[in-house]
Amino acid sequence: MLAVLRLGHRPGRDRRVTTHVALTARAFGANKIFVANKDGNLVNSVNKLVDRFGGNFLIEDGVNWKKTIRQWSGTIVHLTMYGLPIDEILHKMPRNDLLIIVGAEKVPKDIFNLVHYNVAIGHQPHSEVAALAVFLDRILEGKGIRLNFNGKITVVPSKNGKKIIDSGKNKHPSR
Amino acid sequence: MLAVLRLGHRPGRDRRVTTHVALTARAFGANKIFVANKDGNLVNSVNKLVDRFGGNFLIEDGVNWKKTIRQWSGTIVHLTMYGLPIDEILHKMPRNDLLIIVGAEKVPKDIFNLVHYNVAIGHQPHSEVAALAVFLDRILEGKGIRLNFNGKITVVPSKNGKKIIDSGKNKHPSR
Repeated sequence: MLAVLRLGHRPGRDRRVTTHVALTARAFGANKIFVANKDGNLVNSVNKLVDRFGGNFLIEDGVNWKKTIRQWSGTIVHLTMYGLPIDEILHKMPRNDLLIIVGAEKVPKDIFNLVHYNVAIGHQPHSEVAALAVFLDRILEGKGIRLNFNGKITVVPSKNGKKIIDSGKNKHPSR
Repeated sequence: MLAVLRLGHRPGRDRRVTTHVALTARAFGANKIFVANKDGNLVNSVNKLVDRFGGNFLIEDGVNWKKTIRQWSGTIVHLTMYGLPIDEILHKMPRNDLLIIVGAEKVPKDIFNLVHYNVAIGHQPHSEVAALAVFLDRILEGKGIRLNFNGKITVVPSKNGKKIIDSGKNKHPSR
């Protein structure tokens, strides 16, 4: 199990970025996202996408983050620009039973001491979406984005168009 | 010059995600971002961050995207889930004179034919922030996030705290 815990989600303000976090988690090989705070709209839109594009990705909202951390039996990593460089830590990372924590703009101070590793994807301010994507890409050695999701909709790689196969409906070889 | 062109930016709705795109561009080694549509608030907040954290990153808003593409003398890449897999294309990518296009939710159809390469960072829906980060991380072979930005503020990598050196003001070894 590779899971992501999204801290500090505010349904109005953060929905778009949290959606990016959730879809990035899924597309780069994670199995589940825990979201601190309830957000039915977020859950619905992620579940709809999973239904169409496949895979077994789970989303659970309204979790108590301290409890999620306490109950996690494997390794826990917090992605933060203040942490140790990913280049130093990468070889220590397990490829499963890993909980990856990403915050919104501010994270509770305790987090730094509740995890096994605080890891920086660079020490510049950027984006939790970027940090998560590169972290997963590196720990899975590029294999995350090559997973087969067996969805109703499959994208057919193309030089210069949009080609999909929609097995749920008609085929749209190009649209 | 490694530059990013952000298409379809709507100042109200997209500011946060476009900010993530811009900061990701900078933190992963790009030199400039062009933003289609004017957005003074976006430009100010990126410039303020550059002033504090360093580097020579430029942001130009209100650009005409067709003109930006036409005037670009180097290679042009469009990141899209419909494109060819990054694993196939990576060796063809130049490390400079490269314009990397990322869209918002919808991109004008013409884009697919106006670029040299349509490249997919996986064929699943996720995030332009994630796609840009992984693309830059891969073409720069992980060196982007190790650049020295020589800013007023420098993060000191830390096992479990927030350590910065603020040469503009006092030193905060830990806060």
